[in-house]
Amino acid sequence: MPEQHRRLASPSRGASSRSRAARARQIADVLRHQITSGDFPEGMLPDESTLGKWLGASRNAVREALGLLGAEGLISRRQGVGTVIVMPKYGHGMNRLAGLAETLTGYGTVTNEVRAAHFVTNPPAVIAERLELTRSAGAVYIERLRWSDGLPLSLDTTYLAPDVGRLLLSCDLASRDIFALIEEMTGERLGRADVSVHAVNAGPDAAVLLDIPAGAAVFAVERSTRLHDGRPVDVESIQIRADRMAFNAVLHRGVGPAANQLQGSRS
Amino acid sequence: MPEQHRRLASPSRGASSRSRAARARQIADVLRHQITSGDFPEGMLPDESTLGKWLGASRNAVREALGLLGAEGLISRRQGVGTVIVMPKYGHGMNRLAGLAETLTGYGTVTNEVRAAHFVTNPPAVIAERLELTRSAGAVYIERLRWSDGLPLSLDTTYLAPDVGRLLLSCDLASRDIFALIEEMTGERLGRADVSVHAVNAGPDAAVLLDIPAGAAVFAVERSTRLHDGRPVDVESIQIRADRMAFNAVLHRGVGPAANQLQGSRS
Repeated sequence: MPEQHRRLASPSRGASSRSRAARARQIADVLRHQITSGDFPEGMLPDESTLGKWLGASRNAVREALGLLGAEGLISRRQGVGTVIVMPKYGHGMNRLAGLAETLTGYGTVTNEVRAAHFVTNPPAVIAERLELTRSAGAVYIERLRWSDGLPLSLDTTYLAPDVGRLLLSCDLASRDIFALIEEMTGERLGRADVSVHAVNAGPDAAVLLDIPAGAAVFAVERSTRLHDGRPVDVESIQIRADRMAFNAVLHRGVGPAANQLQGSRS
Repeated sequence: MPEQHRRLASPSRGASSRSRAARARQIADVLRHQITSGDFPEGMLPDESTLGKWLGASRNAVREALGLLGAEGLISRRQGVGTVIVMPKYGHGMNRLAGLAETLTGYGTVTNEVRAAHFVTNPPAVIAERLELTRSAGAVYIERLRWSDGLPLSLDTTYLAPDVGRLLLSCDLASRDIFALIEEMTGERLGRADVSVHAVNAGPDAAVLLDIPAGAAVFAVERSTRLHDGRPVDVESIQIRADRMAFNAVLHRGVGPAANQLQGSRS
């Protein structure tokens, strides 16, 4: 992506152009907040002059801000129609160790396109290490493209401990959540997961699968999950379309984790 | 960003090219996990043939995966040196309502370049609404570029309720955390914050300020914060360099929020 790595030469830009750009960014921040908070339930933005009044900004600045939000994939400007919000985002709560399908219950049908599901004899060394197994034990690899409402939502690649993974290979991976299947097939509850959420530019392969432009911002989630007894069984990398999902939380200050109340909602 | 929105024409790519790209993506997922987990404390990746052995992959596939991670800004390949991890990411815990500076204590010096700090007479209508004020009450606008270890980390734009905001205008905004200042100046504790974490492509203005390529993936965090008595005082939009920060959590399954233990650590 060499185009992306071209740096904007700030010294060559005039002060007025810089300040106009700053103003557009500030307006875009406010509008993004409104859009993702569900302030426009009809899915349309008002016209530029109304927005300008609300925002205390010129039409030119509003237009530039709408251009930024268009480039983010959040809105689309349609001739003769107006400014349309491309799609509402799902809110994924950081509240508990729920599989994506469980969390999205009520937000449309989530189905999985199973792209790979097989035993691998020589998994990456770090995967074996995370699973606390020798590499020669192998692992089960499952790759699923998750769809909701007829559009790709995320690309999930999962390495499972071989005994647990083999049990899942005979299961309905197209419509069931892996966490639920692990608990059902092993008879054990899942315990703790370590989760790390990154933002990255989609690589060419992930972009094709997720049907987004190469380089579009996506969430890259790393998640390692253990059974209730502490044994690691599941190491995942998930790339999620950031135009379709946000992570939400309600946080409280000055109190221990026990008093936190973290929850998800449609943003 | 028209280059970014060019879609890769998947039908024109051969099956072998697609499967090589998929393999590179899978390897990149594993390596990203290792890098962000701190598996390479010396800040260098082993050579391609060692990586190939660890990953059970060909050198070509490894090279392509390193190309993807290079495009993400995670690594840099230096002639005669090898593959260098560009910088470790800070881990930002979702555990409590901590300001960024508080969270980063111990991770180097965070300083703020105050780009704006003034009263605005006509704030955006939605900001007034979020602050539960009339628009004519005005608001205080603070824009800060946050630096750590000599590099930009985040761009924070904050609207404050006018009474609280005016108290802060005389404070040391360059080295103090806004949350701490609000509590100090009002004598009240902060209460709940609603947080929403998005991933977006940096717009041109934010990219210049954050010293990243235009279009690079950044976290866009929307945060509305209330005093302990429930009154909203602070509405923020924060853009964070995603090559320098990840959101971490430890989650537990099947239990209420009270048992969650969410924490941050250097990833």
